[in-house]
Amino acid sequence: MLTKPPHLFDDATRVTAGDSRWRGQTSDDYWAFIGPFGGATAATILRALIDHPERSGDPLSLTVNFCAPIARGAFDLDVRLVKANRSTQHWYVELTQGGAEVGALATAVFAERRSSWSHQQAEFPPARPFEQIRPFPRIKASWANQYEFRFVEGDPDFGAAKKDAPGSALSKCWIGDRVPRKIDALSLMAMSDAFFGRIFHARGELVPFGTVSLTTYFHADVTDLAAEDISRVLAVADANIFHKSYGDQTGALWSPGGRLLATTTQIAYFKA
Amino acid sequence: MLTKPPHLFDDATRVTAGDSRWRGQTSDDYWAFIGPFGGATAATILRALIDHPERSGDPLSLTVNFCAPIARGAFDLDVRLVKANRSTQHWYVELTQGGAEVGALATAVFAERRSSWSHQQAEFPPARPFEQIRPFPRIKASWANQYEFRFVEGDPDFGAAKKDAPGSALSKCWIGDRVPRKIDALSLMAMSDAFFGRIFHARGELVPFGTVSLTTYFHADVTDLAAEDISRVLAVADANIFHKSYGDQTGALWSPGGRLLATTTQIAYFKA
Repeated sequence: MLTKPPHLFDDATRVTAGDSRWRGQTSDDYWAFIGPFGGATAATILRALIDHPERSGDPLSLTVNFCAPIARGAFDLDVRLVKANRSTQHWYVELTQGGAEVGALATAVFAERRSSWSHQQAEFPPARPFEQIRPFPRIKASWANQYEFRFVEGDPDFGAAKKDAPGSALSKCWIGDRVPRKIDALSLMAMSDAFFGRIFHARGELVPFGTVSLTTYFHADVTDLAAEDISRVLAVADANIFHKSYGDQTGALWSPGGRLLATTTQIAYFKA
Repeated sequence: MLTKPPHLFDDATRVTAGDSRWRGQTSDDYWAFIGPFGGATAATILRALIDHPERSGDPLSLTVNFCAPIARGAFDLDVRLVKANRSTQHWYVELTQGGAEVGALATAVFAERRSSWSHQQAEFPPARPFEQIRPFPRIKASWANQYEFRFVEGDPDFGAAKKDAPGSALSKCWIGDRVPRKIDALSLMAMSDAFFGRIFHARGELVPFGTVSLTTYFHADVTDLAAEDISRVLAVADANIFHKSYGDQTGALWSPGGRLLATTTQIAYFKA
């Protein structure tokens, strides 16, 4: 019997179990200019938690703080269940390489999500259908080529004539894995960081940029995601401010049917 | 010479230095129905970091995960500088009481903020001036009475006739300390959690509610805040979704002059 090889994303975010120390590795398929794609690192951390034998419930929130450059190769994940309650778990994770200093740290909350009153306050943003939009061309960073971006609004136009006034930082695009893969918490985590830097949109040019802290909230559990059965999301991102070398980003990931799956925010360094 | 007694808020968020273990205590002045006001706890954690001899730079982000009920009385803060770079610091904090299980954990980033291109993408939301609005009446929870809330929009109307359809979760209000106190990073941190639960607004009633994870980004450093020299902020909060016992909140804190000082987001448990 032929077994299907794993999806590139699953290969890139693979972990090997340990007792409290798990192992992962950077992936050349999900490489950014000077280090691994942060979304893949965050998803790898999430996978180590989801696969952990003591884990119960679904991911509710994950915060990853990127501390130092992560080099190509293997890394260790020190995973600790700090506190477990009846229906929630609080985790702390540190990523190190070769026993050296911490490259990333993360806190996560998992929860058994019980049925309740349910209401989506936010409205699904209008968007041209996926099929009617041309894919964004491939670029140099390998990670971006593992995704298909189809921009509804805020098409990147970096390197064109520099803008006189700051541009809009809003972008709205369909994102799916280039090799289709069913959307799960892992891909939502990675896609939370799959927006281009907001500063690039505001400035109309590429500048040195790096995510410092990334937080994602999950609004759909494994049952909800299975019911959606989708391979792409409508991703909306915007920024509030750029000031003294740091700027923020807010984002939302929607199912094509109009369900809010995750919200995300990050603060990032830039040089401009 | 008479020395001025400390502001209630400074007393409530007081810490005593230790080497890696700091001490704080809950405050009856900032008490919520079943535990300390989360904003005061978060501000106490932030104060332990700001006062730490190894701290350099200004707070950039703070994430606090509330793990377990915190009892009235003293608590310990285990404070650890996980990684320091040339211009950023990454901290991890655990709050315990009497050597028992962790009640809250937090990660923080501090940064030396260098001047850069600066642009505020978000627009200052229109609001009636503070002076034209009547203060929100005092309520049972002591913490809320340490603040003066003046609602521009989304006046709480809990306990009125239950709504047929979900209400708006948006609220916009002026918040200042009831005993005026100059806005600093500590008060911004506390005010990040000084919104009433979004679920109360959406449902038009009070229901069991608790913040699980709270993240705040600071968009003004100590110099910026000193220049503002203000004692209140315009606070805007909204929610995207309530689903399977958890709902989110997004918020922004603005200076009266229209400067975005902090953005915040949280995920909270509710029973409804």
